[in-house]
Amino acid sequence: MSTLPRTGIGTDIHAWAAEGEDRPLWLGCVEFPGERGVAGHSDGDVAAHAACNALLSAAGLGDLGSVFGTDRPEMAGASGADMLRHVAGMLDEAGLVIGNVAVQLVARRPKIGPRRAEMEAAMSAALGGVPVSVGAATTDGLGFVGRSEGLVGLATALVAPRG
Amino acid sequence: MSTLPRTGIGTDIHAWAAEGEDRPLWLGCVEFPGERGVAGHSDGDVAAHAACNALLSAAGLGDLGSVFGTDRPEMAGASGADMLRHVAGMLDEAGLVIGNVAVQLVARRPKIGPRRAEMEAAMSAALGGVPVSVGAATTDGLGFVGRSEGLVGLATALVAPRG
Amino acid sequence: MSTLPRTGIGTDIHAWAAEGEDRPLWLGCVEFPGERGVAGHSDGDVAAHAACNALLSAAGLGDLGSVFGTDRPEMAGASGADMLRHVAGMLDEAGLVIGNVAVQLVARRPKIGPRRAEMEAAMSAALGGVPVSVGAATTDGLGFVGRSEGLVGLATALVAPRG
Repeated sequence: MSTLPRTGIGTDIHAWAAEGEDRPLWLGCVEFPGERGVAGHSDGDVAAHAACNALLSAAGLGDLGSVFGTDRPEMAGASGADMLRHVAGMLDEAGLVIGNVAVQLVARRPKIGPRRAEMEAAMSAALGGVPVSVGAATTDGLGFVGRSEGLVGLATALVAPRG
Repeated sequence: MSTLPRTGIGTDIHAWAAEGEDRPLWLGCVEFPGERGVAGHSDGDVAAHAACNALLSAAGLGDLGSVFGTDRPEMAGASGADMLRHVAGMLDEAGLVIGNVAVQLVARRPKIGPRRAEMEAAMSAALGGVPVSVGAATTDGLGFVGRSEGLVGLATALVAPRG
Repeated sequence: MSTLPRTGIGTDIHAWAAEGEDRPLWLGCVEFPGERGVAGHSDGDVAAHAACNALLSAAGLGDLGSVFGTDRPEMAGASGADMLRHVAGMLDEAGLVIGNVAVQLVARRPKIGPRRAEMEAAMSAALGGVPVSVGAATTDGLGFVGRSEGLVGLATALVAPRG
């Protein structure tokens, strides 16, 4: 059993910024100029944050809140890429290698297709080159995503003991 | 690392058709006669569509929108089984084998239990015989699923380089 | 392909009990004294229940409803730990070993951090010692979780043929 890889699951959800508020939109470590941003203190990158949660989940190393919580002021302005790099370092220190990370966005916008390769490359680079995939889906107009109140990142990851 | 399998995650969400509208219900490549169907153009099979998204996610080959988007008119009437077959072919071409696919439906109805084995067999057949599982859960009356506005498919999949 | 592990996905969602109703809160096989509990008949442990669904999903052995349904009166008062033990026994009987289980809670409260290690140890013990991780996230105030109507457990699991 000790040679089995481990799977993890993570989410991150953010509310859209108010209309007209000057907030950037970051998703998958890529900026989407001209798109409405998300509310809050961090860069609100639900793809990167969900990926961090999935990696920590697979590794059994806590979650975004415990690693980057409000008691860590030095991480206050951390970007999604900073967070991914930090989490990758934690896993490395724990003797784990990352197999892959897969993110599913659930959002009305932005259009992911034209930027997918860039997002995957940017997240992969922050994680030291492992395969990262990003997909997107809508809710067919339902729920808070359908009402354009916010967007959801879901992610899974596979890690294994360094062998 | 190159020998590790890869995990993926996918969702699909559809609104129920209006009461009285004559739409069939397809779930897991099986029809549920007499059950209210889902709105929209496709067969609305959230189990098959979430499974496709999870497989594409694990493989890093995009998502349902990029593969079967509105710019692919030849797929306009594609069934869930057609889509699964097409995705399985894409993975095969990419040198990947499918380990398994697991679907979790979140919906008030229909009752899945009596048709579970059929759904699993139909999805498995469309994917060339790999293990497929289907489970179901409710939301305890909460959210858009609880208000009977729509239903959710969540899926994960494991794929590996053909070896 | 026969040597590949299998991944699974599971959810469980419960409504919070009415304010003032005397219901305990169980999460991850651990009680949270003084916290508002969840409505319903079971102990409402969404972490344990989502983990059961993920394990059954990976194994292809149905879901919580089929295994512990209302036609199984002897399981009516089953705790989350009872259910995990029962599911672990089913997988063992099916010739499967559990690699790991990972749970992501989506809820406004309680604070998980101070009890995380206890929850992980309690769930792991019920499953015979396999790695279990528990993370938590919020919805940034959105949806039924944000309105404090209920809480969500999402889980994934990895299983493999014994041998």
